[in-house]
Amino acid sequence: MKHPFFKNYGPFKINELLKDLEFKNNEENFDKNLITDIKDLNTADKGELTFFHSKKYHFQASKTKASYCITLKNLANYLPNECRSICVDNVLLTISQITSKFYPDAINDNFDNSVKQINELNFDSKIKYGHNVLVGENVKIGNNCNIGHNTIIEKNVTIGSDCSIGSNVIIRNTIIEDNVSILDGCIIGKKGFGFFPNKQKNLRYPHIGIVIIGENSEIGCGATIDRGSMSNTIIGKNTFLDNQIHIAHNNKIGDNCIIAGQVGLAGSSTLGNNIMIGGQAGISGHLKIGNNVQIGGGSGVIKDIPDNTKVMGYPSKDLRQFLKDNK
Amino acid sequence: MKHPFFKNYGPFKINELLKDLEFKNNEENFDKNLITDIKDLNTADKGELTFFHSKKYHFQASKTKASYCITLKNLANYLPNECRSICVDNVLLTISQITSKFYPDAINDNFDNSVKQINELNFDSKIKYGHNVLVGENVKIGNNCNIGHNTIIEKNVTIGSDCSIGSNVIIRNTIIEDNVSILDGCIIGKKGFGFFPNKQKNLRYPHIGIVIIGENSEIGCGATIDRGSMSNTIIGKNTFLDNQIHIAHNNKIGDNCIIAGQVGLAGSSTLGNNIMIGGQAGISGHLKIGNNVQIGGGSGVIKDIPDNTKVMGYPSKDLRQFLKDNK
Amino acid sequence: MKHPFFKNYGPFKINELLKDLEFKNNEENFDKNLITDIKDLNTADKGELTFFHSKKYHFQASKTKASYCITLKNLANYLPNECRSICVDNVLLTISQITSKFYPDAINDNFDNSVKQINELNFDSKIKYGHNVLVGENVKIGNNCNIGHNTIIEKNVTIGSDCSIGSNVIIRNTIIEDNVSILDGCIIGKKGFGFFPNKQKNLRYPHIGIVIIGENSEIGCGATIDRGSMSNTIIGKNTFLDNQIHIAHNNKIGDNCIIAGQVGLAGSSTLGNNIMIGGQAGISGHLKIGNNVQIGGGSGVIKDIPDNTKVMGYPSKDLRQFLKDNK
Repeated sequence: MKHPFFKNYGPFKINELLKDLEFKNNEENFDKNLITDIKDLNTADKGELTFFHSKKYHFQASKTKASYCITLKNLANYLPNECRSICVDNVLLTISQITSKFYPDAINDNFDNSVKQINELNFDSKIKYGHNVLVGENVKIGNNCNIGHNTIIEKNVTIGSDCSIGSNVIIRNTIIEDNVSILDGCIIGKKGFGFFPNKQKNLRYPHIGIVIIGENSEIGCGATIDRGSMSNTIIGKNTFLDNQIHIAHNNKIGDNCIIAGQVGLAGSSTLGNNIMIGGQAGISGHLKIGNNVQIGGGSGVIKDIPDNTKVMGYPSKDLRQFLKDNK
Repeated sequence: MKHPFFKNYGPFKINELLKDLEFKNNEENFDKNLITDIKDLNTADKGELTFFHSKKYHFQASKTKASYCITLKNLANYLPNECRSICVDNVLLTISQITSKFYPDAINDNFDNSVKQINELNFDSKIKYGHNVLVGENVKIGNNCNIGHNTIIEKNVTIGSDCSIGSNVIIRNTIIEDNVSILDGCIIGKKGFGFFPNKQKNLRYPHIGIVIIGENSEIGCGATIDRGSMSNTIIGKNTFLDNQIHIAHNNKIGDNCIIAGQVGLAGSSTLGNNIMIGGQAGISGHLKIGNNVQIGGGSGVIKDIPDNTKVMGYPSKDLRQFLKDNK
Repeated sequence: MKHPFFKNYGPFKINELLKDLEFKNNEENFDKNLITDIKDLNTADKGELTFFHSKKYHFQASKTKASYCITLKNLANYLPNECRSICVDNVLLTISQITSKFYPDAINDNFDNSVKQINELNFDSKIKYGHNVLVGENVKIGNNCNIGHNTIIEKNVTIGSDCSIGSNVIIRNTIIEDNVSILDGCIIGKKGFGFFPNKQKNLRYPHIGIVIIGENSEIGCGATIDRGSMSNTIIGKNTFLDNQIHIAHNNKIGDNCIIAGQVGLAGSSTLGNNIMIGGQAGISGHLKIGNNVQIGGGSGVIKDIPDNTKVMGYPSKDLRQFLKDNK
């Protein structure tokens, strides 16, 4: 499938992709087959390259359909026979370098210079728009949408029907479903805060994930929702976010959640459905928060939370315990 | 009094307002008198409808001048004889539905499409303005004001004299007194984060309160100040807010307060005069913070605070105790 | 040296500067020599005025080259013979009043009305710019820069080569070195949140410091970085800031730092190199944070931190201790 937002500069010959990289395989000559794309373990297909950097994902690795996999020497055995391993010292660094060859446009977020004033464009749908609305190439906007003043919708963005987009909003690399409200001043779809630290000059890696916002949701004023690195950042259906919320890359939030002002999600966490998060709470990276969880305002969550749990505190603990400890 | 910002679609016959609602009175036929408006207990007048949902407000209820009151069966007796009770199961839900009939425009915050470039409008007052300043119908701006680039002032907003409004600011449903500074990127007067959670599709309620900012105050960059639901959000006189502050709906802040960066107020709290709040502190909803209170940076306030008190911590406690506990 | 951003309305005769101020010297007649500028103890030169308000700075005071120094009676003896002391009750208030005479334009941040659409200006350098980019007088922009839509670059700002400035950005009183990314919605260089509280009407003091952003750095979406009062606010080289960060006036951040989302720095702190700060952490004012320090997400730092230390907590403590206390 064609990437909806970034141009794929592939296919590349596998030798070509590897030539600048140190790799640890005994065999020195890879064939010259073409690699068409780079994907994660679950979504990669025949002819594509994937990566496997932690034993945690061994089950997915054993099932991958990818033809090649960048991995560590001690993980290579988990891969199926049809998937050829390419062993390196630093999987994520290598994958970043290869992804940059496929998708160089995903590294930096320079402004979209394809945008035009919306009144110079032809939309079949009924759109009510303000002054100085800028819309990029190939943007799709559904019926009965409102788009406020000075709002910028960059190329390839898709907006469903009955959406209300506020003023001074910037949207890129994002798919918005029907009946979504994006309030004033939001910045949605920029690259996540991910890079390899390096003295003199950090090495940015391309973010080829996108943002998806489910139907009936609302995003409060001044929110920032970053797109994912390899996977997507997802806001579920009928999930409401208050003002000044920061959702970092790769987070996946379920349906019917309510998230109060100034909450921050550090990245790559998965949140279930029907979650309530009080104001200014923070959630660390790579966590799993269950369904029907309630997180008190100001909490700092640094561990997974099971379903149907109420927590509060920094670090967060069971709500009853928190109240008891702080009587 | 006419609502300064939202069109009142009333008057409505009381039967008409109630016909879609379950109510619990024995009597089935209400008279056909016209209800002209919906107000809170204190401000409602003859011919108007009010609501009374918690015993906490029994004193105000006993004094209301409203002709009708949406309430609970066990609270109806507090009302004066001249006020007829309409008993329902969920007062706030009912009042939300009725308010939506009077003020449907207060439910969503679509952009104001009445705005024009300021240079196409005639103001008697001396105003210095930047590029692309958009001003709605019936906006009043005092003398000697500065209004920065790309700023949007939506219909009916009132700005006093000697005010400095920054660039990229959005103001709606707000009254600003004299000599106020609103710095760049503020978003003031949007609806609060209030709704009835409902699987599939949350039910938004109309926010008919406004924002009032007292004279000589300053609002830092990127602040969001939401308008109230039934009552107003108020910033007192000579009160200074730093950057990235979030003031949710219905908060009332006194005079001469100093609030540092990234503080958040959850909603419906009342703060006295001469209060100092350190950076990143959060204040829960429905609290009463006294005069001359000092709240340390990063504190989480979840209880009322009496006058002349210094607190710090999460949850906040007496400052001396906090320092002792953390030596 | 001429101030790069604010007009110096001096020189002033010393008698003229002092005439509205109470001062405590025995001698009543100061000579009529001209004072050309006001600077801090380190940078002031012959013919200039400085200030010295705390014994903490006695070493710098003893070396100052300033011709006059506003100070306290009990500190005057630390000054060299060539520097004449002017003793007052409140050094900072006096210095604020005098600075206001030299630099009245640094008190308020009214929008820059010298800006023009960038396409009406002539730049020799190769610049790629969006719609509605506004640029003030005497702005310098290096080669190969990108400047997004609706961005405002106020007068005298300097931007190096190979910089990427996002959309809806506001920059004033700032020097940006080469290869810096400023993402969407940042507000950089406005006056700090500093003033003398005063019933009825707080007294703002002029902020004549600037913001300097070192090469290869990145500033995330929606950041606010305030300029300094007397000294500058500095972001080091190759330092990356995530979204919604607030850097108050006078902070100095070193090289190769990584600061996650929603972090706040209260002002006048000095941070070393290679520092990592987790999301939503807050750092109080006037602290010294060493090199190679790691501060956990959500921490509240209220004390200096030595080199090579990991801390977490509110208030922050040694990381191992924090983890032990919260097992």
